Amino acid sequence: MLKVAIVGASGYTGVELIRLLSNHLGVEIAAVTSEQSAGKDISTVFPSLTSIFDKTLENLDADVIAKKADLVFTALPHQKAMDVVPEFLKKGKRVIDLSADFRIKDHATYGAWYEDHKAPELLKEAVYGLPELHREEIKKARLIANPGCYPTSAILALAPLLNNGLIAPETIVIDSKSGVSGAGRSATQDTHFPEVNEGFKAYKVAEHRHTPEIEQELSLLANSPVIVSFTPHLLPVNRGILSTVYASLKKDTDEDSIFGTYNEFYGKEYFVRVYQKGSFPNINNVRGSNFCDIGIKLDKRTGRVVIISAIDNLVKGASGQAVQNMNIMYGFPEDTALKGLPFFP
Amino acid sequence: MLKVAIVGASGYTGVELIRLLSNHLGVEIAAVTSEQSAGKDISTVFPSLTSIFDKTLENLDADVIAKKADLVFTALPHQKAMDVVPEFLKKGKRVIDLSADFRIKDHATYGAWYEDHKAPELLKEAVYGLPELHREEIKKARLIANPGCYPTSAILALAPLLNNGLIAPETIVIDSKSGVSGAGRSATQDTHFPEVNEGFKAYKVAEHRHTPEIEQELSLLANSPVIVSFTPHLLPVNRGILSTVYASLKKDTDEDSIFGTYNEFYGKEYFVRVYQKGSFPNINNVRGSNFCDIGIKLDKRTGRVVIISAIDNLVKGASGQAVQNMNIMYGFPEDTALKGLPFFP
Amino acid sequence: MLKVAIVGASGYTGVELIRLLSNHLGVEIAAVTSEQSAGKDISTVFPSLTSIFDKTLENLDADVIAKKADLVFTALPHQKAMDVVPEFLKKGKRVIDLSADFRIKDHATYGAWYEDHKAPELLKEAVYGLPELHREEIKKARLIANPGCYPTSAILALAPLLNNGLIAPETIVIDSKSGVSGAGRSATQDTHFPEVNEGFKAYKVAEHRHTPEIEQELSLLANSPVIVSFTPHLLPVNRGILSTVYASLKKDTDEDSIFGTYNEFYGKEYFVRVYQKGSFPNINNVRGSNFCDIGIKLDKRTGRVVIISAIDNLVKGASGQAVQNMNIMYGFPEDTALKGLPFFP
Amino acid sequence: MLKVAIVGASGYTGVELIRLLSNHLGVEIAAVTSEQSAGKDISTVFPSLTSIFDKTLENLDADVIAKKADLVFTALPHQKAMDVVPEFLKKGKRVIDLSADFRIKDHATYGAWYEDHKAPELLKEAVYGLPELHREEIKKARLIANPGCYPTSAILALAPLLNNGLIAPETIVIDSKSGVSGAGRSATQDTHFPEVNEGFKAYKVAEHRHTPEIEQELSLLANSPVIVSFTPHLLPVNRGILSTVYASLKKDTDEDSIFGTYNEFYGKEYFVRVYQKGSFPNINNVRGSNFCDIGIKLDKRTGRVVIISAIDNLVKGASGQAVQNMNIMYGFPEDTALKGLPFFP
Repeated sequence: MLKVAIVGASGYTGVELIRLLSNHLGVEIAAVTSEQSAGKDISTVFPSLTSIFDKTLENLDADVIAKKADLVFTALPHQKAMDVVPEFLKKGKRVIDLSADFRIKDHATYGAWYEDHKAPELLKEAVYGLPELHREEIKKARLIANPGCYPTSAILALAPLLNNGLIAPETIVIDSKSGVSGAGRSATQDTHFPEVNEGFKAYKVAEHRHTPEIEQELSLLANSPVIVSFTPHLLPVNRGILSTVYASLKKDTDEDSIFGTYNEFYGKEYFVRVYQKGSFPNINNVRGSNFCDIGIKLDKRTGRVVIISAIDNLVKGASGQAVQNMNIMYGFPEDTALKGLPFFP
Repeated sequence: MLKVAIVGASGYTGVELIRLLSNHLGVEIAAVTSEQSAGKDISTVFPSLTSIFDKTLENLDADVIAKKADLVFTALPHQKAMDVVPEFLKKGKRVIDLSADFRIKDHATYGAWYEDHKAPELLKEAVYGLPELHREEIKKARLIANPGCYPTSAILALAPLLNNGLIAPETIVIDSKSGVSGAGRSATQDTHFPEVNEGFKAYKVAEHRHTPEIEQELSLLANSPVIVSFTPHLLPVNRGILSTVYASLKKDTDEDSIFGTYNEFYGKEYFVRVYQKGSFPNINNVRGSNFCDIGIKLDKRTGRVVIISAIDNLVKGASGQAVQNMNIMYGFPEDTALKGLPFFP
Repeated sequence: MLKVAIVGASGYTGVELIRLLSNHLGVEIAAVTSEQSAGKDISTVFPSLTSIFDKTLENLDADVIAKKADLVFTALPHQKAMDVVPEFLKKGKRVIDLSADFRIKDHATYGAWYEDHKAPELLKEAVYGLPELHREEIKKARLIANPGCYPTSAILALAPLLNNGLIAPETIVIDSKSGVSGAGRSATQDTHFPEVNEGFKAYKVAEHRHTPEIEQELSLLANSPVIVSFTPHLLPVNRGILSTVYASLKKDTDEDSIFGTYNEFYGKEYFVRVYQKGSFPNINNVRGSNFCDIGIKLDKRTGRVVIISAIDNLVKGASGQAVQNMNIMYGFPEDTALKGLPFFP
Repeated sequence: MLKVAIVGASGYTGVELIRLLSNHLGVEIAAVTSEQSAGKDISTVFPSLTSIFDKTLENLDADVIAKKADLVFTALPHQKAMDVVPEFLKKGKRVIDLSADFRIKDHATYGAWYEDHKAPELLKEAVYGLPELHREEIKKARLIANPGCYPTSAILALAPLLNNGLIAPETIVIDSKSGVSGAGRSATQDTHFPEVNEGFKAYKVAEHRHTPEIEQELSLLANSPVIVSFTPHLLPVNRGILSTVYASLKKDTDEDSIFGTYNEFYGKEYFVRVYQKGSFPNINNVRGSNFCDIGIKLDKRTGRVVIISAIDNLVKGASGQAVQNMNIMYGFPEDTALKGLPFFP
């Protein structure tokens, strides 16, 4: 029985980890922490857990947690994870970090888009936990940088095309729309119900911090530096990301061959569903599941491919992918605890 | 391995049965039917099922279905179930009917609120499938009348009080609010998105067909005829019913004793969660689960008890309760395939 | 030209006053204040006002405001209005207060449900600004206590029945549901989008502070003390209140006579629309307007009348009613600036 | 007093025309028609109009309507408008057509994207009613082809850049998101509440019929053929379109000069609000108004300009623009009946 701790369990990714792991016969949640709510029963923070998951939230004391758990999920705000992750590693624990702290390999790039890094020595070691691209490295990783939600949707949409050199990287435009749970559980003016409901907007246009993360992975796939336009938007829904991605073909290619490329690339990937010609994803068909659904259209008039990908930002975009990584690291079947059907309607 | 069929699988209760049963190790879904979509892969009707549940929808041919399955879930519109249920019973099958066709014991009452009944001889035999009240009869039933969504929320809210004679039955007011999936999957003007979204209304005021169903069960509990005011409302959400129930105490009673009554009545019931004093349910804490959450307030000023119950109309209000009934009928642990945590947010 | 000030203009009732008054040819908005945003252009707080309403938010300095305006709308939080309202009155200004501070006539009742009152000498003088009941007093009032949103919907629903002695006051149950804008513009965990969206709950069950306000006015109408059950709920919509009200008839009465009572009582009231038999209101038919729509059902089985009323909580439940009061106080036609059609869909 | 008729008044653009025109002192709505609901009071179709707009819906008899009205708004489905528009013109009436029937100048292009045209002789004469581009022609037009909702948002976003030759036309990508009212009032599976709510999808990818309309106007502005990628998406809101538009600069340009171009182009346009640097539109800031809000970002890393425009699809995207066209045609101040503030929240 693998013992795990969830550090920062009072947020949405925390409760989603609990939901998923409660279906995992090989895992025991040994500790849950919360700075704000330490000492409280977790069901006071999440009444949905009443009578079915009885645990007291505790303070984040790395010594205490390390004694209880072998694997630590850190679901802390950015810049906070890097304070504790090194401690857990020193104590011989493995860590799956759901923050952005260890996703960027290049220290200078991290500094340009974020703040100073307090544990830069770990940047190279951390494995970018997108199993469809880095499964082998994940198996033996000590530290997993669990991918961002937007990057997961964008990278999976583009990987087959870049990997096969079919598109011109400088033409990539990624237009993404995310549900509000992606902004976390803290109340802000921007996420106050009447400000979001019946509204829709772009934000951080051409400035969002997920940009370098997307570019890092796309560059690896293209084997050359890729720079993209990326625009995030806020959807008035709880869950889901849909990314509409545009890129120009390098040379004339027919639609069958493009679908062939995707089907080959993802043929063995349970969690990527490539739709048939003429069908396109909807976030309500992946809700609650670890699937990334992909629809593809070749627009002959413009010479562009339009790829549309949909994920649940809390599952494949966060906690589900973290569980998938854990399964790979510990030799569980990769879909363990992730076979729950999408939640529709 | 128990083989089951889902008759009428292209509606919301159908796909929810599939979602739940796919977690059940003792059950195989042997057939799914749909009049409109017979011959199609079910994933064309529910893209959420793509690549994970590959079955072709077939026509409803009782002979064919009866050969494939031992238990039949009928998820058909009202008045249609009564056409086929007798056939399945004759062939020695057991049936859990999710329509209203067999819920009313009294033929005349059925006629007064619905239309003519085409199989009245089964009304007495059918067992009203609310396990918390009729568990023993369910065990050996051939035909389960799976309760309505509103009645489930209303009856569970009132059962302890009526069973203990604490309230005056003639003072009962049930004000219920339901998500739109309760209206089914057929497109209508009333459920067209812009008509529902940002809207809220009551409908069928004092005329809803769930009224006699509620009254039948409350009368059994009170051991005398109970007549109630019942008002359904349409909530702009996909799932969930919240019922706010009012009743006057027969005599002065303190709040502790009322909570004691509920805790004793539901002490062994896994799927009913009685909240602590001062806490009240929210439909988003039961979403996707088979729980019925109950909050209670004694209003000393008016001498009324206010009981608030919340369920997911597609789970405890339909498909989850159907699975719970199946588990009881076939000797599976009652919570099998129903232990998935609520889906929050 | 009547000069008005809006004190506390950065909340939802503030911007709604601006929206409505901008259509009023006889009124000039001479000042807008905000504690948090003083010095900023109001369009930075409400981008919707960009280029059409250019005013700088100022500090609340009663001397300054009194020099600019003759009528002051105070749209401040409870307990804050009572600090400044006496000042404006002393300076000879008239005030329409949108807070709860001056709605309760009885000092002891106020204390029992709220905190200490800092200007109790004004409680008797303040006129409860529900024009359909107190039009004559409003005309000459110095201080209007603008009614609460829930009370407006509940009182208008019950007034004809109580005024005509048709119902037993002790049987009244008021089940109300409100959109989120009623909670104001401040971000809180309870109004964070993912907590509200797809959710529904009751709150402050049998304890909401609007209860004594409702009871005060119903008692006046009944000419005897009325005590009610009142349960507010939070709807996942921006605007709208729907109240479902139950009361038992004192004696057998037919439906025609009940409709007659309503039509007579509200026959000359432009802003109350009594629906025809069999039709019931929906909040989306009053959105953006000052209407209160009322539907009525006599339930012969239970001897109860069910009355359903719908308002826009920001218009008839707040800013629209304030403008209606202003029109009455200053001799403008009562519907001036309030004739905009409901906003559907 | 200008007498107008609304042909096809039982849809969303019909009721929005009524809402707007009811504020217009120079206009009288002389007739409203509806095929399905002829003979009914319009308030049975739109209860929001109860007691304030009393008109009976009539059959569409061109002779009768022509006697009552001088200007006819045709708010009919595509392919139906072309049946009646020629009749009204023959009778000497002027027509503002809200369908797509007369928007495409080129008969072959119309045929390629739509079906056969039944009145192709009018295609050249019809004036594309986007006042910011074609004001002079609108003044004297007999027949206005009122622009589509998506095209309005896309064309206004791009006009200043193309008009000034700043961008490479072949790099234009238009990613648009629309509220559900844009799909009309007819109930369909795709617009059934639980299918849309909490969902988000693209549709008609690279195949939407608004594409040639956008390209026609952009080509005029660029003075050369423009081909674009256009992807519409369905937002779970009632109203609003937000378009995110990408294009590569032809040569290095700084942000100030781009803002200068927009401010000059739209300096005198009341209904276009160019936001300041760093601010971007939200559909909830234009709701209910005739504004098109525009935000701009120069992304130096990619050499692209990102332009974001927001409109209310029923106002600037349909009925409001129709009223604006009417004002221009008849010499009313252009903003008459269109000065209502946006409806927030």
